[in-house]
Amino acid sequence: MSEPVTLPVSIVAWELKRLRKLNPLVHLLTNEVVQEITANVLLAAGASPAMIVAEEEASDFAAIASAVLINVGTLYPARETAMRQAVLAANAAGVPWTLDPVAAGVLEYRSAFCRELLELQPAAIRGNPSEIRALAGFSDAGRGVDSTSGSNEALDAAQQLARRTGAIVAVTGEIDYITDGEQTWATPWGHPIMTRVVGTGCALSALVAAFTAGAAKRLDAVAAACALAGICGQRAQAASKGPGSFKAALLDALYLLTPEELLEEKI
Amino acid sequence: MSEPVTLPVSIVAWELKRLRKLNPLVHLLTNEVVQEITANVLLAAGASPAMIVAEEEASDFAAIASAVLINVGTLYPARETAMRQAVLAANAAGVPWTLDPVAAGVLEYRSAFCRELLELQPAAIRGNPSEIRALAGFSDAGRGVDSTSGSNEALDAAQQLARRTGAIVAVTGEIDYITDGEQTWATPWGHPIMTRVVGTGCALSALVAAFTAGAAKRLDAVAAACALAGICGQRAQAASKGPGSFKAALLDALYLLTPEELLEEKI
Amino acid sequence: MSEPVTLPVSIVAWELKRLRKLNPLVHLLTNEVVQEITANVLLAAGASPAMIVAEEEASDFAAIASAVLINVGTLYPARETAMRQAVLAANAAGVPWTLDPVAAGVLEYRSAFCRELLELQPAAIRGNPSEIRALAGFSDAGRGVDSTSGSNEALDAAQQLARRTGAIVAVTGEIDYITDGEQTWATPWGHPIMTRVVGTGCALSALVAAFTAGAAKRLDAVAAACALAGICGQRAQAASKGPGSFKAALLDALYLLTPEELLEEKI
Repeated sequence: MSEPVTLPVSIVAWELKRLRKLNPLVHLLTNEVVQEITANVLLAAGASPAMIVAEEEASDFAAIASAVLINVGTLYPARETAMRQAVLAANAAGVPWTLDPVAAGVLEYRSAFCRELLELQPAAIRGNPSEIRALAGFSDAGRGVDSTSGSNEALDAAQQLARRTGAIVAVTGEIDYITDGEQTWATPWGHPIMTRVVGTGCALSALVAAFTAGAAKRLDAVAAACALAGICGQRAQAASKGPGSFKAALLDALYLLTPEELLEEKI
Repeated sequence: MSEPVTLPVSIVAWELKRLRKLNPLVHLLTNEVVQEITANVLLAAGASPAMIVAEEEASDFAAIASAVLINVGTLYPARETAMRQAVLAANAAGVPWTLDPVAAGVLEYRSAFCRELLELQPAAIRGNPSEIRALAGFSDAGRGVDSTSGSNEALDAAQQLARRTGAIVAVTGEIDYITDGEQTWATPWGHPIMTRVVGTGCALSALVAAFTAGAAKRLDAVAAACALAGICGQRAQAASKGPGSFKAALLDALYLLTPEELLEEKI
Repeated sequence: MSEPVTLPVSIVAWELKRLRKLNPLVHLLTNEVVQEITANVLLAAGASPAMIVAEEEASDFAAIASAVLINVGTLYPARETAMRQAVLAANAAGVPWTLDPVAAGVLEYRSAFCRELLELQPAAIRGNPSEIRALAGFSDAGRGVDSTSGSNEALDAAQQLARRTGAIVAVTGEIDYITDGEQTWATPWGHPIMTRVVGTGCALSALVAAFTAGAAKRLDAVAAACALAGICGQRAQAASKGPGSFKAALLDALYLLTPEELLEEKI
């Protein structure tokens, strides 16, 4: 198991080019609070979001989507059923699905559902340090969606979780670590202003899902999603005064950033 | 049946003035993703949105509203029941209701519900070409909310659907066509950036519903809603850098545009 | 019972400093439309929002939160059950909870639920004049979330409601009145543009809830929340062109305003 290495921007450029060519249709089963920003982040970056939430439709749509996201932020029983059906249909159709285990470890209802989902072969898991530690079985208690520990403290948990589930695990904070349990990329572009805008983490999970679609090397694809959010976040921070203007600037940056700019190392 | 004719801006000006004087109360039963932008578009333009979603209240409120919108984007059974009750109450009270058939033709659950609603005398239907073709019974398959054909290819379907249901049908894209089955207006102000901001189409359907309230000539009213969105979208596009700044600029433009400006042909 | 007195900004400064030090975890059970702006207002101001909505989790989370908000804007039975459980758990744990009685008096289902909640010792109630008059039992009829009377006409109702329930009652408009039934603060910083952005009132109720956490003098805390929204709203209005840019500017202003600026009377 090797030490974390900073992700080369050439990989981000290559994966971003691939994403925009593919324009993947991402089936989002996410929480009530962040649906608009999540859809807008995908549209800006170059993917197509679709929220199909009913038990009557979730299976059929997951099977024709390019990727699926499950985010348990505002879980309740009817949505839980639709999520389970979407995951099973995605697996049957070979569609990769990503888990965002919001507040896992804090409340038992969602924690139990997340443990169940871990057995169903997620392609990727994106969480904050508290959530990843909780999923890995470390004793830890978070505080809602806010993490109470840093991402480096959770690296060991992320690696264990990746080896156990087969998923790429991304644990995000000021530095993100993305691991398959053996190799680990670091993406050092996080900024604290991100924590003052609701949904930036949840939307990143949707980007992770989008990048898993058709990925040749899933570890690189997930890391590229994290890097893209971080790089655009830094641009947006430089162009804004506070969290309100930051959000608009983040969407603009995701839309405007080109693979060519990344390759010219203008970042 | 006459050829499409570009809508004169004098009609947009007259209808906008009428909307702002009336300040219609619009009962919105729309999808989970776009509720905030939909409400903000109506508030900016000069209408009053209200989301009343429970079966316990939907009938009572639809009957006192000025107009009702039904958007099936994130349909599920409890919401479906509330929508059906709102439509029946609206019809009984003479309140016009508008249908946005999101992703009709892609998934059978919502397609069946849309077919049922078509029998209940919608005042207007606003959709993308794939959705309108599906409702009209043309064999076609969309891709979630994104259309796979252009609006001119769907004009024939829109005209047939209008004649069959009695609704004004608006099929929107870079050029919008608005038809009662005989006369057809074209509004040529669409811009591709609109497709990178979630909810612009759904919010346009809410504007359509708002303009149907108290309309003397419903065809003109629906066309004016489409034109207003397009004209403000062009202004917003000119004032913004990407989809994040575009959304704020669109709301500002809807708020700032006056009937007088339109009449002076400053657009 | 004394006449309303304008709240000194020194109290706003002191309460804002206290809020940011405490960074309260606020459990939000609010309506579907405004969840994102509500969360963003709290994050910008210095509190931590969390939406935990299922019956399976609402009690447990309310008991560990610093404050709870109940907003009945898009009430339906499952959410009503979760709200009732959260209120009971909050009361058992000594956690203050705040009521936003959206459209009370207009529709009987939500009005009955609000009357039930009034018996469960709310710490604070924030509403528009029509809503406060309806809760106080005055004959009045609103129009959805828009008020049909001014805040000064509702002052008597607010004072009666405060004495009857023991809650601090805030009735908001161009001038806000905040009362415990004996003493009344006025905060004169409201601006009509606020009414063109959905969720500004609902987000203010969430700020009220945040300020009740750990408050030594609850009347001052609730008044400070109203003043903070008004002062930042005035700054945002000066920095924006319409409701789209206003919303971003409001979040920026909430993030950037410091207690020190307030004390230097730069407002």
